[in-house]
Amino acid sequence: MGTVVTLGEMLLRLSPPGNSRFLQTDCFDVTYGGSEANVAVSLAVFGKDSRYVTKLPAHEIGQAAVNTLRRYGVDTSKILRGGDRIGIYFLEKGASQRSSNVVYDRANSAITQAGREEFDWESIFSDASWFHFSGITPALGEEACAICLDACKAAKAAGITVSCDLNFRKKLWTAEQAGAVMREFMPYLDLCIANEDTLADLFGICSAPIDVVGKNLTKRGYQTVARIFSETFPGVQLALTIRTSHSASDHSFAGMLCTEGVCHFSKRYDIHIVDRVGGGDAFCAGLIYGLQTEESPQQALEFAVAASTLKHSIEGDANLSSVSEVWALVAGDGSGRVQR
Amino acid sequence: MGTVVTLGEMLLRLSPPGNSRFLQTDCFDVTYGGSEANVAVSLAVFGKDSRYVTKLPAHEIGQAAVNTLRRYGVDTSKILRGGDRIGIYFLEKGASQRSSNVVYDRANSAITQAGREEFDWESIFSDASWFHFSGITPALGEEACAICLDACKAAKAAGITVSCDLNFRKKLWTAEQAGAVMREFMPYLDLCIANEDTLADLFGICSAPIDVVGKNLTKRGYQTVARIFSETFPGVQLALTIRTSHSASDHSFAGMLCTEGVCHFSKRYDIHIVDRVGGGDAFCAGLIYGLQTEESPQQALEFAVAASTLKHSIEGDANLSSVSEVWALVAGDGSGRVQR
Amino acid sequence: MGTVVTLGEMLLRLSPPGNSRFLQTDCFDVTYGGSEANVAVSLAVFGKDSRYVTKLPAHEIGQAAVNTLRRYGVDTSKILRGGDRIGIYFLEKGASQRSSNVVYDRANSAITQAGREEFDWESIFSDASWFHFSGITPALGEEACAICLDACKAAKAAGITVSCDLNFRKKLWTAEQAGAVMREFMPYLDLCIANEDTLADLFGICSAPIDVVGKNLTKRGYQTVARIFSETFPGVQLALTIRTSHSASDHSFAGMLCTEGVCHFSKRYDIHIVDRVGGGDAFCAGLIYGLQTEESPQQALEFAVAASTLKHSIEGDANLSSVSEVWALVAGDGSGRVQR
Amino acid sequence: MGTVVTLGEMLLRLSPPGNSRFLQTDCFDVTYGGSEANVAVSLAVFGKDSRYVTKLPAHEIGQAAVNTLRRYGVDTSKILRGGDRIGIYFLEKGASQRSSNVVYDRANSAITQAGREEFDWESIFSDASWFHFSGITPALGEEACAICLDACKAAKAAGITVSCDLNFRKKLWTAEQAGAVMREFMPYLDLCIANEDTLADLFGICSAPIDVVGKNLTKRGYQTVARIFSETFPGVQLALTIRTSHSASDHSFAGMLCTEGVCHFSKRYDIHIVDRVGGGDAFCAGLIYGLQTEESPQQALEFAVAASTLKHSIEGDANLSSVSEVWALVAGDGSGRVQR
Amino acid sequence: MGTVVTLGEMLLRLSPPGNSRFLQTDCFDVTYGGSEANVAVSLAVFGKDSRYVTKLPAHEIGQAAVNTLRRYGVDTSKILRGGDRIGIYFLEKGASQRSSNVVYDRANSAITQAGREEFDWESIFSDASWFHFSGITPALGEEACAICLDACKAAKAAGITVSCDLNFRKKLWTAEQAGAVMREFMPYLDLCIANEDTLADLFGICSAPIDVVGKNLTKRGYQTVARIFSETFPGVQLALTIRTSHSASDHSFAGMLCTEGVCHFSKRYDIHIVDRVGGGDAFCAGLIYGLQTEESPQQALEFAVAASTLKHSIEGDANLSSVSEVWALVAGDGSGRVQR
Amino acid sequence: MGTVVTLGEMLLRLSPPGNSRFLQTDCFDVTYGGSEANVAVSLAVFGKDSRYVTKLPAHEIGQAAVNTLRRYGVDTSKILRGGDRIGIYFLEKGASQRSSNVVYDRANSAITQAGREEFDWESIFSDASWFHFSGITPALGEEACAICLDACKAAKAAGITVSCDLNFRKKLWTAEQAGAVMREFMPYLDLCIANEDTLADLFGICSAPIDVVGKNLTKRGYQTVARIFSETFPGVQLALTIRTSHSASDHSFAGMLCTEGVCHFSKRYDIHIVDRVGGGDAFCAGLIYGLQTEESPQQALEFAVAASTLKHSIEGDANLSSVSEVWALVAGDGSGRVQR
Repeated sequence: MGTVVTLGEMLLRLSPPGNSRFLQTDCFDVTYGGSEANVAVSLAVFGKDSRYVTKLPAHEIGQAAVNTLRRYGVDTSKILRGGDRIGIYFLEKGASQRSSNVVYDRANSAITQAGREEFDWESIFSDASWFHFSGITPALGEEACAICLDACKAAKAAGITVSCDLNFRKKLWTAEQAGAVMREFMPYLDLCIANEDTLADLFGICSAPIDVVGKNLTKRGYQTVARIFSETFPGVQLALTIRTSHSASDHSFAGMLCTEGVCHFSKRYDIHIVDRVGGGDAFCAGLIYGLQTEESPQQALEFAVAASTLKHSIEGDANLSSVSEVWALVAGDGSGRVQR
Repeated sequence: MGTVVTLGEMLLRLSPPGNSRFLQTDCFDVTYGGSEANVAVSLAVFGKDSRYVTKLPAHEIGQAAVNTLRRYGVDTSKILRGGDRIGIYFLEKGASQRSSNVVYDRANSAITQAGREEFDWESIFSDASWFHFSGITPALGEEACAICLDACKAAKAAGITVSCDLNFRKKLWTAEQAGAVMREFMPYLDLCIANEDTLADLFGICSAPIDVVGKNLTKRGYQTVARIFSETFPGVQLALTIRTSHSASDHSFAGMLCTEGVCHFSKRYDIHIVDRVGGGDAFCAGLIYGLQTEESPQQALEFAVAASTLKHSIEGDANLSSVSEVWALVAGDGSGRVQR
Repeated sequence: MGTVVTLGEMLLRLSPPGNSRFLQTDCFDVTYGGSEANVAVSLAVFGKDSRYVTKLPAHEIGQAAVNTLRRYGVDTSKILRGGDRIGIYFLEKGASQRSSNVVYDRANSAITQAGREEFDWESIFSDASWFHFSGITPALGEEACAICLDACKAAKAAGITVSCDLNFRKKLWTAEQAGAVMREFMPYLDLCIANEDTLADLFGICSAPIDVVGKNLTKRGYQTVARIFSETFPGVQLALTIRTSHSASDHSFAGMLCTEGVCHFSKRYDIHIVDRVGGGDAFCAGLIYGLQTEESPQQALEFAVAASTLKHSIEGDANLSSVSEVWALVAGDGSGRVQR
Repeated sequence: MGTVVTLGEMLLRLSPPGNSRFLQTDCFDVTYGGSEANVAVSLAVFGKDSRYVTKLPAHEIGQAAVNTLRRYGVDTSKILRGGDRIGIYFLEKGASQRSSNVVYDRANSAITQAGREEFDWESIFSDASWFHFSGITPALGEEACAICLDACKAAKAAGITVSCDLNFRKKLWTAEQAGAVMREFMPYLDLCIANEDTLADLFGICSAPIDVVGKNLTKRGYQTVARIFSETFPGVQLALTIRTSHSASDHSFAGMLCTEGVCHFSKRYDIHIVDRVGGGDAFCAGLIYGLQTEESPQQALEFAVAASTLKHSIEGDANLSSVSEVWALVAGDGSGRVQR
Repeated sequence: MGTVVTLGEMLLRLSPPGNSRFLQTDCFDVTYGGSEANVAVSLAVFGKDSRYVTKLPAHEIGQAAVNTLRRYGVDTSKILRGGDRIGIYFLEKGASQRSSNVVYDRANSAITQAGREEFDWESIFSDASWFHFSGITPALGEEACAICLDACKAAKAAGITVSCDLNFRKKLWTAEQAGAVMREFMPYLDLCIANEDTLADLFGICSAPIDVVGKNLTKRGYQTVARIFSETFPGVQLALTIRTSHSASDHSFAGMLCTEGVCHFSKRYDIHIVDRVGGGDAFCAGLIYGLQTEESPQQALEFAVAASTLKHSIEGDANLSSVSEVWALVAGDGSGRVQR
Repeated sequence: MGTVVTLGEMLLRLSPPGNSRFLQTDCFDVTYGGSEANVAVSLAVFGKDSRYVTKLPAHEIGQAAVNTLRRYGVDTSKILRGGDRIGIYFLEKGASQRSSNVVYDRANSAITQAGREEFDWESIFSDASWFHFSGITPALGEEACAICLDACKAAKAAGITVSCDLNFRKKLWTAEQAGAVMREFMPYLDLCIANEDTLADLFGICSAPIDVVGKNLTKRGYQTVARIFSETFPGVQLALTIRTSHSASDHSFAGMLCTEGVCHFSKRYDIHIVDRVGGGDAFCAGLIYGLQTEESPQQALEFAVAASTLKHSIEGDANLSSVSEVWALVAGDGSGRVQR
């Protein structure tokens, strides 16, 4: 199986350590991440060949971002270097009833200033079998959107599977803008990953309000959503993450994967959160891995959900779980017994 | 609306980091706090004008305490400087079944050695609308008690609202002493903040034992307490914090506010604790803010309880939550979803 | 009451701080521990005289291990110095669904290279009333096993009480090997400490599968196990730890002690875990303390279970709880209220 | 004596701790500084009234910058809030032969996007006696330059002393641009602070090459420079910092102040560097303090040079030395004997 | 050779990490030390039997102090427990021209409140060959002075060698007070350790001003001082530390020992300082060790000076150098080559 | 120019942070290094293709070592995985007169247990132009020595340049053993890197004692050594590092390179040391880089010496300096002025 290529923006993440607030801290924990970079890292840690495409400044902070990817085995040879800055986000982790807080400082980053002509998709995809991106990439600007579309077209032309995590960011664009743009991408997709809110916000796809339990849909509600989605975007598989946030410290997490008209539902995990960022990306990476290595959609989905669950216990943006750890969780070992 | 003035002792708090015990640590996290200082900080962070009055030594450790207040916007211009030492308390944070442990080293601190004549209440209260203190201040000694009484009298004379958090500390005085002294202060109070145990210990105000569920009173029990209180201390509003400690890591928290014969009960929050110290002070600050800005006692109370709830997720003594964060929690957003 | 002597291997433990993974960290928290060393430390912190016997290299890392014991009051005067290395284990703490991960690097440590003739048991036991070891010590190799047997014989000859925590480590030997070897030790034991899995793995002692609730036996199931044990090893008291791992973060813990045909069951605690390592050792230390100071087996057991419960809230291998903290928990104060 | 007002840009500084390089670190030490902010902080720590004027974003990172100023006593009431971002600079501290390394990410910061009309100079200068800025502020863009000129004119009109540290930054503009712009400001200045390189680069003011010892001018060389300067910009006092960098760890530092045709030279200090950033700002603050409180120019200069010397031993951008510490150094106590 | 007993006050030392100032830090490094405790620790690390006598509060902070001593092998069995508090000192480490800064908060500590009757000197000295104290102990108050005198008398009566480091602390008493009190102790001393300033301040013993080079006496000057000392206090050996402080970072250090009318001078070391506190105590410990194990006064002195030199490179109050490290330095290996 | 291949052992390095001693620390800074790995990392950071060959255990600690190499761009695809353990060394950094202290725990590491048949040199050298190893690799054991000899032969056969840093480690073997073994390797070498002591210890190559200044040879002495070396090992270029250790904190460093009968001497740098480990490896990497990219041996040598000089200012084993930083130092910019 070939390389998985992902495209997007990589950000410098600055977080007060532990439970500190922005107003208290005199240091920041430093990680480098981004939706598609996280997918690439998780796949590399799974032992898959993965390649990340972006543009990063030539200075040492840009290099530190590249080094993070290399450290975990991602191919960085196609990353463009140049531009003035790397996008930054400040993340204050929540706890109990206190929400996490994100301050973005990502405007004018190198990737948003890159030009379509800088990317040689033929070369980038030469040994690729899968292309993945998220809805954040087209949201970065018109040129980024065009770059992403170029990539989709090139991937399609090369017979490469294409997946997209809709990943709607209200701080980057409106639901209307996002819906209009993402519709253009749907024809190129083999797999669309989303959650129920995004489908409703972007495409107006939702179930009747009666199919709700707590804040989540019922199983029937999710099936209704999947049916409407497949009618709207025929030929595109749909995967949904099903998350309930009880507090900033406690979530529950499950997933649905609909293939060939059948909706598979995963186990549901109650998670005590260490670091919530990148949970969706871990799901995407798990699903890409599962679909490439598993015959059964149910098993692929279980792998993806367990991978994402483990991510929530790991500091930083990226899932550093191994394949064997994920399978162990799928097999039911969530007890945390020390092996010795 | 004018400035809120608070009076009390500010302590240097020394805590082993994380879950370390006193016997293990080779460093201490340093914060500066104290019941009334915490109230002043929380109000300043809410955007209110607040002023803190105390006496602190002129050396750099005293200055660091002053700087903590200035950092968050508290007016420190009326703080006296002099005396030999700042009071210290060592705090080992508990976890699970292990209780938090406090070692006090606060005797002979600057404020306990200050004289009544050093405080110019007319000047201190010149632009004030509210005066707040806690039962810790009179417990510091006879002179401190006299200073506190001077302040109450001056405030009353100036038509300023006076509130007191009874805050009974068994390590400073006995219930009998506390009861006798605090009774002297009651005539000056517009608002008394307490919990059920303190009312029982100090004033013998309690409900019949049949009104208990678990370790807490029933709603009817709290109403009974409020009725007896208002008969004992007519004209003084009563606010109660209602806390249940499931373990050192998990509490639930609610509140009651009785005004004009009506007892309002707040929502109840299940809290995963980051730092429990200052939870009551955050309630006081929230209530002072709420009563000054809200028409409805119920909303003022909900604000106070949500503020205190958020404090439990914040390191250090003081509540660094913003007004918008508190209202978001009151509005029901306790899910900790990241906004991005 | 005389000194409690324990014998075993002391390891250097290297742990990524907080929730970090091996792949992420650039520092390790350093502690020194080992099953029997942990028992000795806990007893010393309880105020008992305790002495730890092992062999450690003469270099500074070995000295640092000795110093850890001295710090908490353990007598180290009988520790042999020499050999090339101290055994090491790398511990990555789990969280939520992610299991803790141990990488051992303990082969060829000084104690495994020590010879029987180096230990002068008469001198070591001169003022001793109790000897404790765990199944890890015989697992270290033939010579270590012989040393341990020497110790048991010398203890028995001197009329000293002998206890053993079976402590089966799959990474050191097989269940068959462990079963065969530990059977040889049983005649010397007054007290055997284990859990239900180990009894089944090593000696085939188990209850009928119908006596299971969740993953644990029913009370009747434990009684059945105790009955078979006492038939197999007459004269040996049995203590069992009863642990349920809900996740890497949440366990519940209880215990059983069977003396003179009666099985005592303790309270059960729901624990939010800070550091799970050494929970069993804390139980052993608590039981040794309890049996030496309490008349009632039930109280001794309650002390042991509460001690172990508190250990789970303490960083590092050893229980640093005081006797008064343990009794406070037995008495029901698991609420973590701050005393002030 | 009135308030000292300074105007400029405040930056978030992110530094790898200790001697770490950008490529190694996983955390950044966080401080907030900027040439003029550093001057304001140093003056406030000296006990002077100081006020800092800038524009900072309304978000928490902007607030943290404001809080840093408040902590040390700077009046922040005239700081505008708004705009998208705070400028950032990444600082890797050098050591021995390895140079310090700065990566700027300051484009489009709030102050560079501010408009002239947002500043009410009459109100800002209401109680001011001194206005200070550096050449960095006009370098931020045309509007910033216009704002700075407005300030100078308003100050002049109000009879306020004006000082400027030329502070040429090659990464912001060229020597030609800087020279042309700064010439426009010279008529408003009472005091110009610079070093010899900047005078040469910006205004072509230099001594003959024969007056050089090592990399520094001789005393006569400096006097020549001062003479040419006073001919070029009559009525403007000149102060020069005289620094020799032996390595990233070791500098020597002195200063010259020319008033009424007389050039005063200070003592020279050999400095072992803790943090070199802000050394020039500490000199400016020291000089402003000295000139306002001392009758003798020589003493004012000695104060400024000693203040700057102490700054090099202090972490962060700002000089946190007290007046008494500076005078002690001037008096010759550079021995670092502990007072006890 | 018997046990070395030392008597004094043990303090909790709180230091901002690295080069941070009191005004900047939000944590303190924690160590426990005190002049005589440091001597005891250094001797224990040298492998000598040492015993420290003091009074410490029974709480956990007091226990942590005891544990520090035990960790390094000091006998703590004679330490009294009780009283309210442990003395504290805040230490800000200097660098370059910035002096170290000490804030004392030691009044009313347990040892200052202890009574003479609490100490059983017969038992304390049962196996002792040497008693050491410093001038700090009598400075703690009348009762402490009496306790110290009791100890001297008991030591003398038991034929134990007595040494005293004059250790004059201006923040505890005046030179007149110190001189008068210390004169009372001189008859009991076999060895007096001091520096030239203290001899002048306390006893008026000084050389003619012409015998000064830089800030230090000439060799002849020191000999003159020694001669006057021996005339004033016949029979008491004199050891002087000879320190020159070039800056807070760089000192040079040497020593003189006068026995039987002969003045021995040591090598002189240029030291780059890590932690200056306890340098004199390390000299005392080194001298006690040297005089007990070496025949030659010169070698004993060289050992003491090298030991003190090494202490300056070690964090904390106490010298953790081994005997072999000290001898290696005496032998000339100050090059710091890594042995591998 | 092709890839540079290096072969050796990679160790886990555990260091107390800052100036802490082994006896004080409760954490270790973690880095992974080894003489030849350090060379590979430095070359990769210079932008050269480099490949490191070793054997590392398959567990996470082994993976962390691999990831360190990948992070900096070293090709790790030829690293064998297996075996039980990674070698460890504990490093306590010296300061001032206190020497650094190394405790090795490297026996039985994976590379020492690897077999000759596991290495496919044809594949490893497929695109290589240079092979480098140090004398540590043959010292690891007979099989490691044979593996190293295989590599040399394969390199020679493939026309690849071979260099060796003699790197004599007294803790691994004796000078006699090292001399005998290294002589076998000399016929395969194109370049031998050493210092004067090693040449004397291993091969008896030394200058007459009269050619010594301080602890170093005179220029003439070094030339004599070079002449004897070239007579003994004709055809092998000789490079010498010339280090003087003034203290653990201060060294001076220079180098000599002799090619075609001419001895080139470099500039000499006075270094304030941050981390001395890997200084020699940085020299090797610099020399390999210089000789491959520079026509002039003098320039190659200057590059090597400047690279090594910079390494001493960098934490960890590996030189993370860029080519431009090294050239800047060669060009004379050792002043550490901040560029901004």
